[in-house]
Amino acid sequence: MSNVLVESIFSRITQQQRPLLDRQVVDTGDASPTPFNIQQAVEEIHAACKQRLEMARRLVVVGGDHTLSYPVIKAVAEKFGPVVLVHFDSHLDTFPPMYGQHVWHGAPFRNCWEEGLLAKDGSTHIGIRATTYSAEDFHDSENMGIATLTAEDVHERGVPACVEAVWNRWRRSGNAPVYLSVDIDVLDPSVAPGTGTPEFGGLLAHQLLQFIRGLKGLPIVGADVVEVAPAYDHAGITAMAAANLLLEQIALISSCMDSDGMEKALQTV
Amino acid sequence: MSNVLVESIFSRITQQQRPLLDRQVVDTGDASPTPFNIQQAVEEIHAACKQRLEMARRLVVVGGDHTLSYPVIKAVAEKFGPVVLVHFDSHLDTFPPMYGQHVWHGAPFRNCWEEGLLAKDGSTHIGIRATTYSAEDFHDSENMGIATLTAEDVHERGVPACVEAVWNRWRRSGNAPVYLSVDIDVLDPSVAPGTGTPEFGGLLAHQLLQFIRGLKGLPIVGADVVEVAPAYDHAGITAMAAANLLLEQIALISSCMDSDGMEKALQTV
Amino acid sequence: MSNVLVESIFSRITQQQRPLLDRQVVDTGDASPTPFNIQQAVEEIHAACKQRLEMARRLVVVGGDHTLSYPVIKAVAEKFGPVVLVHFDSHLDTFPPMYGQHVWHGAPFRNCWEEGLLAKDGSTHIGIRATTYSAEDFHDSENMGIATLTAEDVHERGVPACVEAVWNRWRRSGNAPVYLSVDIDVLDPSVAPGTGTPEFGGLLAHQLLQFIRGLKGLPIVGADVVEVAPAYDHAGITAMAAANLLLEQIALISSCMDSDGMEKALQTV
Amino acid sequence: MSNVLVESIFSRITQQQRPLLDRQVVDTGDASPTPFNIQQAVEEIHAACKQRLEMARRLVVVGGDHTLSYPVIKAVAEKFGPVVLVHFDSHLDTFPPMYGQHVWHGAPFRNCWEEGLLAKDGSTHIGIRATTYSAEDFHDSENMGIATLTAEDVHERGVPACVEAVWNRWRRSGNAPVYLSVDIDVLDPSVAPGTGTPEFGGLLAHQLLQFIRGLKGLPIVGADVVEVAPAYDHAGITAMAAANLLLEQIALISSCMDSDGMEKALQTV
Amino acid sequence: MSNVLVESIFSRITQQQRPLLDRQVVDTGDASPTPFNIQQAVEEIHAACKQRLEMARRLVVVGGDHTLSYPVIKAVAEKFGPVVLVHFDSHLDTFPPMYGQHVWHGAPFRNCWEEGLLAKDGSTHIGIRATTYSAEDFHDSENMGIATLTAEDVHERGVPACVEAVWNRWRRSGNAPVYLSVDIDVLDPSVAPGTGTPEFGGLLAHQLLQFIRGLKGLPIVGADVVEVAPAYDHAGITAMAAANLLLEQIALISSCMDSDGMEKALQTV
Amino acid sequence: MSNVLVESIFSRITQQQRPLLDRQVVDTGDASPTPFNIQQAVEEIHAACKQRLEMARRLVVVGGDHTLSYPVIKAVAEKFGPVVLVHFDSHLDTFPPMYGQHVWHGAPFRNCWEEGLLAKDGSTHIGIRATTYSAEDFHDSENMGIATLTAEDVHERGVPACVEAVWNRWRRSGNAPVYLSVDIDVLDPSVAPGTGTPEFGGLLAHQLLQFIRGLKGLPIVGADVVEVAPAYDHAGITAMAAANLLLEQIALISSCMDSDGMEKALQTV
Repeated sequence: MSNVLVESIFSRITQQQRPLLDRQVVDTGDASPTPFNIQQAVEEIHAACKQRLEMARRLVVVGGDHTLSYPVIKAVAEKFGPVVLVHFDSHLDTFPPMYGQHVWHGAPFRNCWEEGLLAKDGSTHIGIRATTYSAEDFHDSENMGIATLTAEDVHERGVPACVEAVWNRWRRSGNAPVYLSVDIDVLDPSVAPGTGTPEFGGLLAHQLLQFIRGLKGLPIVGADVVEVAPAYDHAGITAMAAANLLLEQIALISSCMDSDGMEKALQTV
Repeated sequence: MSNVLVESIFSRITQQQRPLLDRQVVDTGDASPTPFNIQQAVEEIHAACKQRLEMARRLVVVGGDHTLSYPVIKAVAEKFGPVVLVHFDSHLDTFPPMYGQHVWHGAPFRNCWEEGLLAKDGSTHIGIRATTYSAEDFHDSENMGIATLTAEDVHERGVPACVEAVWNRWRRSGNAPVYLSVDIDVLDPSVAPGTGTPEFGGLLAHQLLQFIRGLKGLPIVGADVVEVAPAYDHAGITAMAAANLLLEQIALISSCMDSDGMEKALQTV
Repeated sequence: MSNVLVESIFSRITQQQRPLLDRQVVDTGDASPTPFNIQQAVEEIHAACKQRLEMARRLVVVGGDHTLSYPVIKAVAEKFGPVVLVHFDSHLDTFPPMYGQHVWHGAPFRNCWEEGLLAKDGSTHIGIRATTYSAEDFHDSENMGIATLTAEDVHERGVPACVEAVWNRWRRSGNAPVYLSVDIDVLDPSVAPGTGTPEFGGLLAHQLLQFIRGLKGLPIVGADVVEVAPAYDHAGITAMAAANLLLEQIALISSCMDSDGMEKALQTV
Repeated sequence: MSNVLVESIFSRITQQQRPLLDRQVVDTGDASPTPFNIQQAVEEIHAACKQRLEMARRLVVVGGDHTLSYPVIKAVAEKFGPVVLVHFDSHLDTFPPMYGQHVWHGAPFRNCWEEGLLAKDGSTHIGIRATTYSAEDFHDSENMGIATLTAEDVHERGVPACVEAVWNRWRRSGNAPVYLSVDIDVLDPSVAPGTGTPEFGGLLAHQLLQFIRGLKGLPIVGADVVEVAPAYDHAGITAMAAANLLLEQIALISSCMDSDGMEKALQTV
Repeated sequence: MSNVLVESIFSRITQQQRPLLDRQVVDTGDASPTPFNIQQAVEEIHAACKQRLEMARRLVVVGGDHTLSYPVIKAVAEKFGPVVLVHFDSHLDTFPPMYGQHVWHGAPFRNCWEEGLLAKDGSTHIGIRATTYSAEDFHDSENMGIATLTAEDVHERGVPACVEAVWNRWRRSGNAPVYLSVDIDVLDPSVAPGTGTPEFGGLLAHQLLQFIRGLKGLPIVGADVVEVAPAYDHAGITAMAAANLLLEQIALISSCMDSDGMEKALQTV
Repeated sequence: MSNVLVESIFSRITQQQRPLLDRQVVDTGDASPTPFNIQQAVEEIHAACKQRLEMARRLVVVGGDHTLSYPVIKAVAEKFGPVVLVHFDSHLDTFPPMYGQHVWHGAPFRNCWEEGLLAKDGSTHIGIRATTYSAEDFHDSENMGIATLTAEDVHERGVPACVEAVWNRWRRSGNAPVYLSVDIDVLDPSVAPGTGTPEFGGLLAHQLLQFIRGLKGLPIVGADVVEVAPAYDHAGITAMAAANLLLEQIALISSCMDSDGMEKALQTV
């Protein structure tokens, strides 16, 4: 994705930001986990993140499937404490085991919750519209302190109202550090066809940009963009979407790094 | 399309509906009409629908081109009486003969009108933006009791106002049974490229979902999704759109089956 | 693109216009400039346009890359005087030399400005969201009398407010003749993937249609649609977008030809 | 297809031929038969060919599906007498009625045979490898005087031996005029993916070129290239294949026009 | 793949075989192993095959990746004894562990060898051309009793000579039962682009057909076609290749079932 | 292309070579010539090659279009003296000026000839099948000492005979150093669709591999692979072809570096 990214390297004209110039942003390379064993891969991703967070102040990760949010959040929470999740996706990803597998790409936030990595309250799913497999799935998310804004909420209530809702949710956490996870399938398949489980009726490009920019000021300590599947893409539009979202995440983090109190909180600990 | 559909089999989370669980929904297989003779195919489709309607209370059909709405509506109207048409499309499909052919994919609703299968008033075209071949085409539709909401109407007046207009139209029919026909090209080519006559400037996915869900309560007795052309699709996004719309149609029908009076009306007859 | 165009040949039903019937519209064929030398190509395009404008009252050109707006505007301005630019694009295209090249596809409007082909004030860029290479790029455009409406402006303020802004800009020019340039990458990559430098977050089809139709009444004396790259397209949706925009441009020009004063102004000169 | 063709307009370097320069070759435009009624379409194609053959000495037709070989051969045989068929295809296309339809794309040569348009003996199918629906299909072809060279024959015996077999077959007809029909699916799907019923294991590009060039000297009075389906093509390789084959057919016909005796034979009649 | 297969359901015209009519061929459905754990999946595939072989006389499996050959051969060898492997592939697939993983898609035949599932001698790799990671990989295969025919051998020595070599190899096993494994990437990427690790310079369609048909008479007791990856395919040509190869495998097995002695051998055991 | 290349990094199993291990092979990065001015680009490429050849003993270049062979050969010939050209292509590329442009992608070898960079005799074009624009084009090539092996020669006479012809040609040069240029369009469009001017009937993958490997021993001092156009590719098969050919070129050069006398000859000079 570097080619696409390089084009955007100096500034975001409409935001008056220069995310890759104002901070020292380093590509630390692939974690290269095994493709053959999920448990081992999760441990390798966790170790790789932990190592990077010894030197880096913040961490942004590119997937790969959504399973990785679990080990990444684990490493982040070990440094910053339990996080509020701001999660853009068409699926809840707090699902119970499938094929008897506890750690899988539909369960990263359940995995996090069970290990106490999420703040008790204040998290939000945004863009949900996928089919759930049981009436209990929503209750599960609520029990984990995660509220839901559906895709219909975004389309019909508008982005600013939904942004405000995310801020209100976060305030209930006592201003916990925030982890921002973007599953590319939160976008409509017309905007991001290159993903494994696309869902009709998703967010449009400008809605997601406006939403993410509305989060400016939240104390974001980690972020990811996941579930890009190039084989289903055309003309690279999904990869380009991911590269743009990655840059927006870096810009968000950069904006609030000196003022979000996370450094200080960390020092107190 | 079954793979896509199966994923959605249990419920629509944002609508609190489980259309394939709450009713007995049966895939009765292909009608398998001849590909070589339109008149014969129309008769075969009509016979296949008539046979199914002897056992089934409602009928949902997947195309194939728009020609099939004519024999399907014929079978439906023979059971329920003349129908109000709620027709999503970029084209009017009430056109006069082409190449001297009276029954073709641009004329199904003219064919229906001429046989008295449509209610005298109350029908609506939605999403129209295609080019018409003569200034008289709109007059023809109006004379058949079909009003037009253009794609621009949907974009500029908003979905709720247009939904209200469809309801008001229907009330003029004396609450006739409704037939819902969705030509996939009502969607913008970015959302549904896999179709034979795409038209720039169409409805977005969330607009069409919101529109169809706004019809909840209308006494829908038959429905179709037509004009999906897989060879022009990519990453299956058009097929997935069609599968979702089909499921929405089934959910709509399910919602109103016990209260729409159509059963009773039928028994009286 | 003629196949697509032919479908739309008689009228735009929702606009009650028949742009290819109400005026004599002639396809004068390719200019066929050399592909091997930009300076020579620019001269050949200029000569071809000049020759056509000896007979034609207005000129609409299809690209090709954005470099061609420079020689086309030169020919147009030599007939009508300096023009107000209404420029739809994700990039400013007033950039300084690249690889030491003064005339290139990122600089056509700088080239025009330096030769006095633009009105002193009143021009507007619309849809800008690309990355700029230096903080000075916006100042450069402003110094050339070109204001900027970003893609975010269009999405968040709405099309009608932005249309009004363009009209207000134009009034500052003392009602100068207008040149309308549409870089297809002003559209979101989901709508127009077939272009060389797509940018995430662009205008949707219906927004661009509504915007262009809002310009009805401006004294447009020339127009172009550029940067369609078929190799990146799928199912012809970008080519179809371009054909539709071309037809809209012809409709716009046709609407105002008798009343825009440009003929008269020309006769006075 | 004209763009591709134009590149090849002057000569075939390896054959020392200039087929479009040495003869007056005229594109007489589309026949534009109805898409809605096979019987009517067949009559319109026949009429269009008959009209052209009043002025033209030879006829080359581009499809369209294989149905058209029937009316084209009818027009050709009415001028030149019954023809020997040299037929490249993966399917026999002498099949019995399907869906009760006598005239369809799997039966053109049965249709011809039944009307006495084929020479009693001497015809050959080449490249056959598709599945047949009954053990009798081969007997049917043999009874129509058409022998079969399978794709395996071409691959394993080699092109020169198969070319010789076609010549030997033709000599049995008493040197009847020849009609050359190329269904693009005779090529392997890797070479020509853009067709409706591709079959694994077909001829390679150079094999078909060598085979057709080996027919130089046969008194070819008509030819066609059929079954190109652009929606399944990629990068235009199937369309390019068809354009090349069309040019080879023209070259073949041109080579033998003065010496093949057909003119004379015609004058005698 | 059933659509493609159905077309071929009755007979292979050029082989005078009707594989799906002459034997009772049953599609027993998906084994549905877990996608999350290789060891568990291997056990589930093994159990599914074992169960089917209790009723079925022979087994043909469609992948999925090449890992599955290991549990399938295990089930087959448990019924018929150690097998001679006839393995079409561009890779050896006898590789040592990768990422510390012993059972993976590059090692199924090493896995089989280590469990004594292969005959001591007589197996052959065909079509090998991929890059090997160590000079020892060939020695490993040789030590497992598997000789190698490279893609260059097939192209330059010809198919009949290579077929003869496979037969000679098999005779060294004392006429052991044969397992036929076809990795679709043995084909050239032009013929089968839809696979995960394509390799330039592979077999052409007609070469592979001729090769497989040359094996008629070998006592084949199990077979698979693996590594089809639809997301990289176009126009379905790779899926069609796989469906054809599957049918050829069934035809091969059918041809020799009554005479290959495997039934008898089994009864003796 | 590096991903594809890395897979092949250690050895070519069927050739027993390890081209990237046995020699020090360095990727010196892009030359980054201007995209806006051919003359300037040619000078920049020449300078970049000259600089690299001050340190490197041999040079392999990846295009880009065929224009670059001219400045690359210029730099190579300045070090090694006039070269024999072994040129795989469907086009002669010794064409006269087009649009008045002397240096363009159809003329690199004419440009070389005019500057005395080619040996007087001994060069060969291989795979020629494109259309030539004038009967004189072949004479031009012959006058430049370049003989032609058409694609038909390769297909019908076989690769070994053609390889022998290239060696015999080279011996007439007095054993001059050799430059190997591969235009990817020498391959059939089925094998390499991703190129700008594909030509039906080209070489197959295994033919080109066998041909290039047959050149082992020629004193190759420079090489290129040109005309890959990714936008027309699918599933990366053309890029993979180019990467493989590049590796074969490096293997060829490596094989003969110590024995080809070029070093010595250079020292004598």
